[in-house]
Amino acid sequence: MSSQTKVRLAPPALWAVILPAIVWLLSACSSFGPVAHVRGTGDLGVVIERADGRVKVIETSGRSVLATVDGLGDLSHASVVFSRDARYAFVFGRDGGLTKVDLLEAKIVGRVLQAGNSIGGSISHDGRIVVAQNYAPGGVKAFDANTLELLAEVPAITEDGRRSKVVGLADLSGRRFIYSLFEAGEIWITDFSDPTNPQTQRFAGGNQPYDALVTPDGRHYIAGLFGEDGLARLDLWNPEQGSRKILSGYGKGQEPLPVYKMPHLRGWSVAGGRAYLPAIGRHEVLVVDTDTWQEVGRIPVRSQPVFAMARPDGREIWVNFAFPDNGWVQVIDTVSGKVTHTLQPGRGILHMEFLSKGYEVWMSARDDNKVVIYDTATKQQVGGFESASPSGIFFTTRAARTGF
Amino acid sequence: MSSQTKVRLAPPALWAVILPAIVWLLSACSSFGPVAHVRGTGDLGVVIERADGRVKVIETSGRSVLATVDGLGDLSHASVVFSRDARYAFVFGRDGGLTKVDLLEAKIVGRVLQAGNSIGGSISHDGRIVVAQNYAPGGVKAFDANTLELLAEVPAITEDGRRSKVVGLADLSGRRFIYSLFEAGEIWITDFSDPTNPQTQRFAGGNQPYDALVTPDGRHYIAGLFGEDGLARLDLWNPEQGSRKILSGYGKGQEPLPVYKMPHLRGWSVAGGRAYLPAIGRHEVLVVDTDTWQEVGRIPVRSQPVFAMARPDGREIWVNFAFPDNGWVQVIDTVSGKVTHTLQPGRGILHMEFLSKGYEVWMSARDDNKVVIYDTATKQQVGGFESASPSGIFFTTRAARTGF
Repeated sequence: MSSQTKVRLAPPALWAVILPAIVWLLSACSSFGPVAHVRGTGDLGVVIERADGRVKVIETSGRSVLATVDGLGDLSHASVVFSRDARYAFVFGRDGGLTKVDLLEAKIVGRVLQAGNSIGGSISHDGRIVVAQNYAPGGVKAFDANTLELLAEVPAITEDGRRSKVVGLADLSGRRFIYSLFEAGEIWITDFSDPTNPQTQRFAGGNQPYDALVTPDGRHYIAGLFGEDGLARLDLWNPEQGSRKILSGYGKGQEPLPVYKMPHLRGWSVAGGRAYLPAIGRHEVLVVDTDTWQEVGRIPVRSQPVFAMARPDGREIWVNFAFPDNGWVQVIDTVSGKVTHTLQPGRGILHMEFLSKGYEVWMSARDDNKVVIYDTATKQQVGGFESASPSGIFFTTRAARTGF
Repeated sequence: MSSQTKVRLAPPALWAVILPAIVWLLSACSSFGPVAHVRGTGDLGVVIERADGRVKVIETSGRSVLATVDGLGDLSHASVVFSRDARYAFVFGRDGGLTKVDLLEAKIVGRVLQAGNSIGGSISHDGRIVVAQNYAPGGVKAFDANTLELLAEVPAITEDGRRSKVVGLADLSGRRFIYSLFEAGEIWITDFSDPTNPQTQRFAGGNQPYDALVTPDGRHYIAGLFGEDGLARLDLWNPEQGSRKILSGYGKGQEPLPVYKMPHLRGWSVAGGRAYLPAIGRHEVLVVDTDTWQEVGRIPVRSQPVFAMARPDGREIWVNFAFPDNGWVQVIDTVSGKVTHTLQPGRGILHMEFLSKGYEVWMSARDDNKVVIYDTATKQQVGGFESASPSGIFFTTRAARTGF
């Protein structure tokens, strides 16, 4: 072989040019993100590890943990909403922290400490505005969902100069949000269509609303009342009628029982024209007709219910309980109106999240430091993983739902 | 400057090594995907361009077209389901083609010609199995959602040896699918839990079922009947009762009118405990109570309705019409039961798709070669783009819904 046709190594000075070019090309590749980050986001979710200020990023198709993201502050009573592309989680911490987590890159891409004491948030239907509801200072604040820049603040101050804690925030159509003022006993609807010039409507709401929900169709806003027996309902399709008192027997029974934990109204379920409500203090789930908003039945359960969650098809209601019975879960069949299954998925069941088509439910077993996954057809465990004191579980399919 | 410190160009033979290496590195980058491919998939969708065998990949947050993918064959009457991670679209063509499109990479990643004449398909709740329903040869076929490998075939053959066209396929819980046999007049439920050993239950279904739907809660399967007046309903929570005939006056009126196009049952909407059905041949939308399945009203509309689609909050029903009135769209208010808006969004409105939270509706204006986007609150156009003879529009938020 002649020397002309041999492949010769480049001289050292030439390598000084070629090698950095190769390194640059490789790093450019890596800045595009590794291949694992090119994936769909419809099956992602987060698990709150509240004791450690962390979230686990999970995927539900293979039931696996993808990553852990820390640095989110105090996550007791944390809640989460998602961007409409299902890529970003907005995590609302109890300490007023609002943290934007990129689920694909598994990192924090924005964080503001926006209040001293906060209790969750919501996102506008168009995904542009994130709103936090605050205990202290009482009011709501609106942020740009891209940048977390503060757009507007609505202090919950009434004519008497008193500032109220805000609870029961939910998204309505447009860029509107509805929420309740605990001390003032009012329901407010704020429209952020012009984000820097919010417009607020006010309604009487009852004595000390402490939590609320909007029905899945976005029509009815229902606030639980701490200061009186019953709930306030506002028909958002006929708001000029004002709020009405419903279920004035709610929470009452033959004899009073100590209330270990106020039930979550977000746990209310509407299925087949009926709402299923955890009774306050009583070992019952209340059944309410959503046409008349009258109670039509009570289903005895094992202990004081905290969440009564409908499987997405409405055929079953899964119920968890207050301490010391928080290791139990019961399943109600909505056709027979009876408990059909009593389960012990783990210790300290704090939260239950259904897959959107309902074939699995993921449960936080806080005191076992694990998440357990049950098949809702067989009521058998089909998966799970270690997690440090898990509380809330939130799937990105919430991004497509009003009131979530 | 001495010749030693000069950067020398490599000899030609060396470039023969270096250049391919650089090209390889760049192509390796591209196989990781450019940065635009690292994105959420919750706001994606596809538009069928049926005359050209193409789909446009779109995103709904910025209302833009991301890419066009061609080579999908005959897309007349094409329909689409999505993988549960919202990354892949399974496109069912009329020619029996089943094409898997990667929305992030905007390319076909699998394609099989699985029948001679096909009419749509469905995906199992766990996302593992894609099922196609076929006219010829009549039956259903199940495919691995990852590989499109054929797992099982269920020929729609009855005791008399006759093979039926299959219509009205829908997903049920588990790996079950329900569908109707046109010639045999039967409703079949096939369970693919063991994909290679499917188990089928059979029910009488009425004379010549031509299309069907499952209600949003997955409870009721309703098949339209071509061979008799009325519909067949099977209560899937009480299947032992068999199918019942409902709405025997469906399609009848004071005087018969020519039927320009059979309405789509998939266009049926259930909202607030009522179903809204396009009447057959008549200029009416029927209102049916979903407790009793009795007709409770008829709403006069401009022409023969094709689709009557509920805005996701159930407050409005949007109706399009058969030729020659297919340039009109009317909006029914479900509280007053009256038409409140009459619109002309474009020529040849074939399909309407709502964003999951209902604030926009995307409509195909086939004869204007464009997609038009309307704000459902203002009823004004807010966007749109050119598209060649667009027909179906499908958003990835369908991935989270039963019956879609």
